Amino acid sequence: MKKFKAAIVGFGNIGRYVLDALSEAPDFEVAGVVRRTPGGQQPSELNGYKVVADVSELGKVDVAILCTPTREVENYARQLLAQGVNTVDSFDIHTQIVDLRSSLDSVARANGTVAVISAGWDPGSDSVVRALMQAAAPKGVTYTNFGPGMSMGHTVAVKSKKGVKNALSMTIPLGTGIHRRMVYVELEPGVELSEVAAAIKADPYFASDETHVFQVPSVDEIKDMGHGVNMVRKGVSGKTQNQRFEFNMSINNPALTAQILVGVARASLKQAPGAYTMIEIPVVDLLYGDREELLRHLV
Amino acid sequence: MKKFKAAIVGFGNIGRYVLDALSEAPDFEVAGVVRRTPGGQQPSELNGYKVVADVSELGKVDVAILCTPTREVENYARQLLAQGVNTVDSFDIHTQIVDLRSSLDSVARANGTVAVISAGWDPGSDSVVRALMQAAAPKGVTYTNFGPGMSMGHTVAVKSKKGVKNALSMTIPLGTGIHRRMVYVELEPGVELSEVAAAIKADPYFASDETHVFQVPSVDEIKDMGHGVNMVRKGVSGKTQNQRFEFNMSINNPALTAQILVGVARASLKQAPGAYTMIEIPVVDLLYGDREELLRHLV
Repeated sequence: MKKFKAAIVGFGNIGRYVLDALSEAPDFEVAGVVRRTPGGQQPSELNGYKVVADVSELGKVDVAILCTPTREVENYARQLLAQGVNTVDSFDIHTQIVDLRSSLDSVARANGTVAVISAGWDPGSDSVVRALMQAAAPKGVTYTNFGPGMSMGHTVAVKSKKGVKNALSMTIPLGTGIHRRMVYVELEPGVELSEVAAAIKADPYFASDETHVFQVPSVDEIKDMGHGVNMVRKGVSGKTQNQRFEFNMSINNPALTAQILVGVARASLKQAPGAYTMIEIPVVDLLYGDREELLRHLV
Repeated sequence: MKKFKAAIVGFGNIGRYVLDALSEAPDFEVAGVVRRTPGGQQPSELNGYKVVADVSELGKVDVAILCTPTREVENYARQLLAQGVNTVDSFDIHTQIVDLRSSLDSVARANGTVAVISAGWDPGSDSVVRALMQAAAPKGVTYTNFGPGMSMGHTVAVKSKKGVKNALSMTIPLGTGIHRRMVYVELEPGVELSEVAAAIKADPYFASDETHVFQVPSVDEIKDMGHGVNMVRKGVSGKTQNQRFEFNMSINNPALTAQILVGVARASLKQAPGAYTMIEIPVVDLLYGDREELLRHLV
């Protein structure tokens, strides 16, 4: 069987789990890993894999799985799409998704490539469930309740604050889409907790949520990458009220994000050129296997 | 705004709720209702609507929503697709879905039309959730637990038994996809309950499930069209075990089926010619509204 060649771009938390998910996928092989420091000492998991500075050094690549910080996604994706490589990412700034889609869509169409954007679990698989719930009961409200679990985006935002050596931002669901942020920081010597706390609370990631900031001696000792979601909708189908829907997950966060990224990498190879969010591609395209066999088991 | 013209084919339980859902959809108008007895006395809900024997009497129709018994779907759909009308149905015999898709696919492609098949809640929206759960954790088992609620298929099977005047078969979930059947029958005078019970338990619909049969004076007095589902998957994302997913619904059964049918009717107008199950079409296509606005709210 001809396998799809995937490049992993960035090798932090998500990149490691993407390597796991690609190794388990029967239809993929790892073309290599793109890192900013390809010459240095590499983590032992990368033994036997090509580590390069640019995707062009990997020969033919079908799809690049972007595991960079979210704010670097657009630049990397535009470059790769222009180089003839499909891209998938888990860009997670909800308010900028439509703009990113529009930016990548033009590059992708011009180069005959496909981008699947914002494909993790939220945005991502949760978005598919939200869209499905709305289709099932068009009038009504859906509440997405996250956690308890570590928010990667929020944690990165905290880490970027001056004086913060290490951080963990936990999301605690309070129901009806309201969340508390529990932030744990390891500080550089001489840094004032109150100043760091003020900077965190002023950050757009935190500004509208109840946020508590604690100093801890070691963030690593309290870190757990489990996460969860509870989505509920009560709505109206036709003229019939009180239709109720609920979706729950309890998951390892980067493992799920990585698995979804590999699914949309597969799906990217079945779409017409352009940029898509997950609700714009058929769910079956994420799956490995013969189409009719999948239908027999899933429909 | 130009509205899509939809015909309702069949006016039983589902047909009535489809009329509700179409009336609430901003982008649809009811072209009319196709019935076998268009000349007779019509239910009062149909006042003001055209009732005809053949869809061709309705002028231009974009999509026909099939609300006939499941076994009549293929014939109706093939005729309509050949007449240039898209079709959607909630065909629910799981083992025959792939064959129906293949049969309708060729007619649809030959006539530039689209069929969306098996689009209710199971098969239908549940199928989308099952496929998504498999994408999120490719290794693992998904259990679909139905009920408590009235099973339409099982109820029809009981009604077909000799001596049964009216019936209701309730599905009770016992977990891990195992179900109990609670069957309530109104009998013709002089009929022995034990004989009817034996006939029901021997029927393929019931043979592999724990089944209890009770005689009641009036089935109508205990009938409730509420239903539900609980789907659970525990599986592996990449190499990470114990990823857990759950989907629950508590709904009016025909109202949800009808709403999904109207959603896929809309989606049918956005697909290339051919036949599709719900997991093969993008979920966003089921929704009314501007694409980018939908993305802003849902992704």
